[in-house]
Amino acid sequence: MIRKTILSLFLLFILAEYLFAQGTGDIGVVIERNSGSVVIVNTTSHQVVRRVEKLGNLSHATGVFSRDALYFFTFQRDGWINKIELLTGKVVAQKKAGDNAIGGAISQDGKYIGISNYQPGDIKILDSDNLEILKVIPALYTTKAGEQKQSRTVGLVDAPNHRFFFALMDAGEIWAVDTRTPDFPILHQWKEVGNYPYDALMTADGRYYITGFLKSNWVVRLDLWQLEEGPAKVSTIDPNLHLPKVPMYKVPHLSGWGIADGKAFTPMISEERLMAYDLKSWSPLQSVPTYGTVVFAVPRPDQREIWLSFAGPKNDTLQIIDVATQSSVKMLKLGKSISHIQFTPRGEAAYVSVRAKDKVVVLDAYTHQQITELSVQGPSGIFFTNRAHVIGL
Amino acid sequence: MIRKTILSLFLLFILAEYLFAQGTGDIGVVIERNSGSVVIVNTTSHQVVRRVEKLGNLSHATGVFSRDALYFFTFQRDGWINKIELLTGKVVAQKKAGDNAIGGAISQDGKYIGISNYQPGDIKILDSDNLEILKVIPALYTTKAGEQKQSRTVGLVDAPNHRFFFALMDAGEIWAVDTRTPDFPILHQWKEVGNYPYDALMTADGRYYITGFLKSNWVVRLDLWQLEEGPAKVSTIDPNLHLPKVPMYKVPHLSGWGIADGKAFTPMISEERLMAYDLKSWSPLQSVPTYGTVVFAVPRPDQREIWLSFAGPKNDTLQIIDVATQSSVKMLKLGKSISHIQFTPRGEAAYVSVRAKDKVVVLDAYTHQQITELSVQGPSGIFFTNRAHVIGL
Repeated sequence: MIRKTILSLFLLFILAEYLFAQGTGDIGVVIERNSGSVVIVNTTSHQVVRRVEKLGNLSHATGVFSRDALYFFTFQRDGWINKIELLTGKVVAQKKAGDNAIGGAISQDGKYIGISNYQPGDIKILDSDNLEILKVIPALYTTKAGEQKQSRTVGLVDAPNHRFFFALMDAGEIWAVDTRTPDFPILHQWKEVGNYPYDALMTADGRYYITGFLKSNWVVRLDLWQLEEGPAKVSTIDPNLHLPKVPMYKVPHLSGWGIADGKAFTPMISEERLMAYDLKSWSPLQSVPTYGTVVFAVPRPDQREIWLSFAGPKNDTLQIIDVATQSSVKMLKLGKSISHIQFTPRGEAAYVSVRAKDKVVVLDAYTHQQITELSVQGPSGIFFTNRAHVIGL
Repeated sequence: MIRKTILSLFLLFILAEYLFAQGTGDIGVVIERNSGSVVIVNTTSHQVVRRVEKLGNLSHATGVFSRDALYFFTFQRDGWINKIELLTGKVVAQKKAGDNAIGGAISQDGKYIGISNYQPGDIKILDSDNLEILKVIPALYTTKAGEQKQSRTVGLVDAPNHRFFFALMDAGEIWAVDTRTPDFPILHQWKEVGNYPYDALMTADGRYYITGFLKSNWVVRLDLWQLEEGPAKVSTIDPNLHLPKVPMYKVPHLSGWGIADGKAFTPMISEERLMAYDLKSWSPLQSVPTYGTVVFAVPRPDQREIWLSFAGPKNDTLQIIDVATQSSVKMLKLGKSISHIQFTPRGEAAYVSVRAKDKVVVLDAYTHQQITELSVQGPSGIFFTNRAHVIGL
């Protein structure tokens, strides 16, 4: 009887293995900002597969994927990290690693999760397996009054040769940490890089770490091939174009900066333009006037177009810029509160969150026509599993 | 009783779903060239997971992944295509689509498989679901004697906006096909591009299609942003360096050309050097002397190094070139018949096939030390699932 049961179980499992075999290459996560949930989507069928609820405060939430593309780790404003299994929607681990987290990264080898906190001002390094906190790195700095404080941290990314890079918002510094050495030592601390870095990114080739500032008229580039040269500053002022200042409705996101055609297309704070920089020489090239103040500037994977979303009253419009001519080729009115734009891995379609309409619109990347729309409650961030394989994402 | 059985089955399947949930982001395929089999490997544990046998003639076999990263499609010299499910090793579809196939591609939307045949000279387009042949495109050309013939085809890749590009070896032409329009029309036929194109590649950003020639002293670049300009030729002759010719032990592989730092590092036929070209201006920059005649020139994902394998008597050596200084930084003697080199997606490790030693060596990408080795019978091509998400792969 027992032998028979074991045999039946074994055969059922073999059968189940065939029935449930499923790839994780065409899966994505969409944050439902206000309801503390995420939906898991399939980018082949363009459908919502399941909803994962009771995750906490997901306002401004972001996340990363495990290297096997089976798990998604959330970084939340309430300091919680949820490790979600994508095929079942099960939360397999949870940890509170701060009181106010702004983002995070996964190490190049997939072993560690780094989380960047506003409160307390630190980064924490966790075991990606069980979310155990392995290391706390307080972002200590000395104020002009001589006081020892902890800075908010931003722009945490992974970099080649097992590094984490991040910026200290209140201190105006950039730090690099070694994630290969057991104690996670700080390798570099560049000081006085600018006032109030608000975000930073790693280019997809893992070569340049670029930081934007709220209160300095420059952008900083670190060339990881020549770290001894330190951060290089380049002005955000365009001598040939003087646009009126508009309110800062929202801080732009560098994670969405347009790196295309060897240039960085960078949203300007409180101005309706992008500024293009040559990535290699780090010289400013020209301004690209835009319909509104840019929040996300997302290149189509073939880099021929950059798709823009805007802050404030113009956030109902998606604008498409042709990279070759740097001119506007299309304006799409999709509805209030367009936020995130994410292209499918090979770039044939784009997913766009239209928050006030409770939908994600799926657009053909070439004809710009709507393919379908997905019903999602207050969608914001969209993340596809191909990010598991790209340094800095 | 029946209700109980159904309930038990249901519960078992739920359990099985949890037990078998597995990501496909860290999986790879290694071709076992002489035994007609492949092994499926896990790049997190660095282990062989299973072997899939009786696939046919896998000499020079290559392949592509489905967009969900669940399936691998083989392109074989015997003209067979096998569709292998990676989690179970089951062959779920098979088709003979020619008598001698050299390579293939998957369309941008994942719906179609293109196969490039030497015999008969054509490409065929198949349904990626069931491998049904949907279209045959004979590579027809007229010889100088006025005879109508079919050319061998090479360098078939997918390109942005739902295109396939390929070259006609005997005709010296490059063609482009539209995979979005039902009848798969030929969009472009560029003639007299050079004598005997032997392979071609699409750069990872989907912008440049580059073709190499066996009997013309130039390399051709098509800029997909300006197709009206047609193929641009650039010489392979270096006026500053005259190296002795060596035998052509093996045709280089363009799929392994080193695209790094905005340059194409291109193996020269019968010469012990790479030639570097500026990708944008398409001007020759300089020669990089190498230890032997290069078969594969594979950039580390951060593009700081290019790893080389060689043909003929020097094929026991892996050479590492620093891209910044274009100098040799390391020579590793790993054993006879080093062929393929494949980096893990974020670039922390490299897998190297050492055919005569029946092993795949796993190296640390930064220290160049051996991490482990895998027992594989006569390994050649190595493919990881992150290729599912990259145009042209």
